[in-house]
Amino acid sequence: MSAAKRASKASADKVLVGIDLGGTNIKAGIVTPEGEMLARSRCETRAQEGPDAVISRMADLAERLLDEEKIDRSRVIAVGVGSPGPLSSARGVVVYTPNLPGWTDIPVSAKMKERLGLDVFLENDANSACWGEYWRGAGRGTKTMVIFTLGTGVGGGIVLDGRLLRGIDDTAGHLGHIIVDPEGPRCGCGNRGCLEAYASATALVRRYHEAVAEGSKSSLKDKPRGEVTARDIHEAASGGDALCRSLMEETGRWLGVALATVANVINPELAVYSGGMAAAGGMLFEPIMREVRHRALRPPAARLRLAQAQLGDDAGVVGAAGCALTRAQESR
Amino acid sequence: MSAAKRASKASADKVLVGIDLGGTNIKAGIVTPEGEMLARSRCETRAQEGPDAVISRMADLAERLLDEEKIDRSRVIAVGVGSPGPLSSARGVVVYTPNLPGWTDIPVSAKMKERLGLDVFLENDANSACWGEYWRGAGRGTKTMVIFTLGTGVGGGIVLDGRLLRGIDDTAGHLGHIIVDPEGPRCGCGNRGCLEAYASATALVRRYHEAVAEGSKSSLKDKPRGEVTARDIHEAASGGDALCRSLMEETGRWLGVALATVANVINPELAVYSGGMAAAGGMLFEPIMREVRHRALRPPAARLRLAQAQLGDDAGVVGAAGCALTRAQESR
Repeated sequence: MSAAKRASKASADKVLVGIDLGGTNIKAGIVTPEGEMLARSRCETRAQEGPDAVISRMADLAERLLDEEKIDRSRVIAVGVGSPGPLSSARGVVVYTPNLPGWTDIPVSAKMKERLGLDVFLENDANSACWGEYWRGAGRGTKTMVIFTLGTGVGGGIVLDGRLLRGIDDTAGHLGHIIVDPEGPRCGCGNRGCLEAYASATALVRRYHEAVAEGSKSSLKDKPRGEVTARDIHEAASGGDALCRSLMEETGRWLGVALATVANVINPELAVYSGGMAAAGGMLFEPIMREVRHRALRPPAARLRLAQAQLGDDAGVVGAAGCALTRAQESR
Repeated sequence: MSAAKRASKASADKVLVGIDLGGTNIKAGIVTPEGEMLARSRCETRAQEGPDAVISRMADLAERLLDEEKIDRSRVIAVGVGSPGPLSSARGVVVYTPNLPGWTDIPVSAKMKERLGLDVFLENDANSACWGEYWRGAGRGTKTMVIFTLGTGVGGGIVLDGRLLRGIDDTAGHLGHIIVDPEGPRCGCGNRGCLEAYASATALVRRYHEAVAEGSKSSLKDKPRGEVTARDIHEAASGGDALCRSLMEETGRWLGVALATVANVINPELAVYSGGMAAAGGMLFEPIMREVRHRALRPPAARLRLAQAQLGDDAGVVGAAGCALTRAQESR
């Protein structure tokens, strides 16, 4: 886009505000209806101050961005907020959320709307990130995709025929809680053997320490116990560390077992992996695809492609804006 | 409906033809746009005679039904055919199917249309049955449901927001191939530990014989080995046979593990169980719900209800007609 065109765009066209509410930080951005991020900002969540303070901080951040970019409120189609759940996207209410103390039945959309005078749409944070990648990232041009976010836990999201799968209570898409072994290790959710208990960064580090305790050797042996991260393990694996390679391979195998189930149940054309561990690329993707080819039915296995997420930290903000755009269009 | 009204309906209103193509029998019915079955018939498939003969037999059956009911072709909105897959519903082509020898890339819709002069829509048989139960059976009034068909194998289907989930290649909904234990017994699909390898009628009988071989006692002990059926086991369990009770309980537990994954991924409001074993009702439903409550995330577990299928053998015919109705409406 030329500078003149961009200037004209910035002065007249419609925009969206995307907000990604996390336990530590709030991120916000001005996003065009085509999904281009025009400006971004962030601040601390300070969750301990309670829901009203956090909602006020989200509104402040949005207003500051709009003011800095000299965007009149009349140009804002809607505001999208991606928040930890469980929540009701239809009612715009956070039901409760383990990550934010005191958030029980909080009408986020109504409170933000009252403050900003703009339509506000609430979406599950994992769904927002999924929609961001579908709309503007690795999923562009697909119709049906899933995303696995590999971090402290394993998050997920599903787009089917160009629509987010929310389920009857906005709790669909928890791909980290696919049960891959009913007798497996305890998961944070209370169940045993969820994918998250095997393939999260936390689980990778736990399995590393288990193997070392059982006598396995590793180039990471001089790192103090509390300091070994999933990134260390993945980098050591890249450097040829045999234990770390086998741990990454095992992570890929568990991800592959879960993806084989997803292929048989959902039949998507694309599985996107995001989060720090997804940077391991082929080291994870090879065992994943091996399990899928070995385990899933032939037609869904043959069709399925894997990809790394492309939007990084922006996925949640862009996706929250994109979800708000879709819902504003639908509600007209 | 009064007799006069019914007569007027029969003489003027629009109808659909539903056909359920199975390995052994072809079933057909005249179905109203409201899902009422006005007439039904069936004939043998005689699959060994090859695709052209079977397609011709399906067309004959449809024509015979229409003639018997004195229904002019102009009153037929469309014909729906539920067939074993994999198939392409969009192209109306059976890609191949293990149950029908010689069926490779067979353009069923085009061939039937040429013969009947009517629009013909092809659908996966499991999806047809799922849609039948959703439209006119246990799923009436729901928006989002799944169905597990417990027979020789374990079939499945998924309706989301009032639409069948077909996936990118028409192979979504294979709930029998959810992996419940990656090291489990070999499944007919070649993989290990699919739900089908634990919870089909075949698997139930296999587990019975394994238990008896290991010394378990049962009231069925006088039956010759080849003659013990899933129904025998379920009836013996109802009669208090301890081994059979524990086998039914175990079946329910595996179904519950799979349903917990479905709850976390799809968040449906209803899970319908059809097929012979579903008649066991509470004996299966109690362990299923126990596992779901124990294993699934709280919100999707709290919402989920279980139900037995209501349409029995008619589900496939009614559903094939219903799918054809939906697609005829969409293609206008």
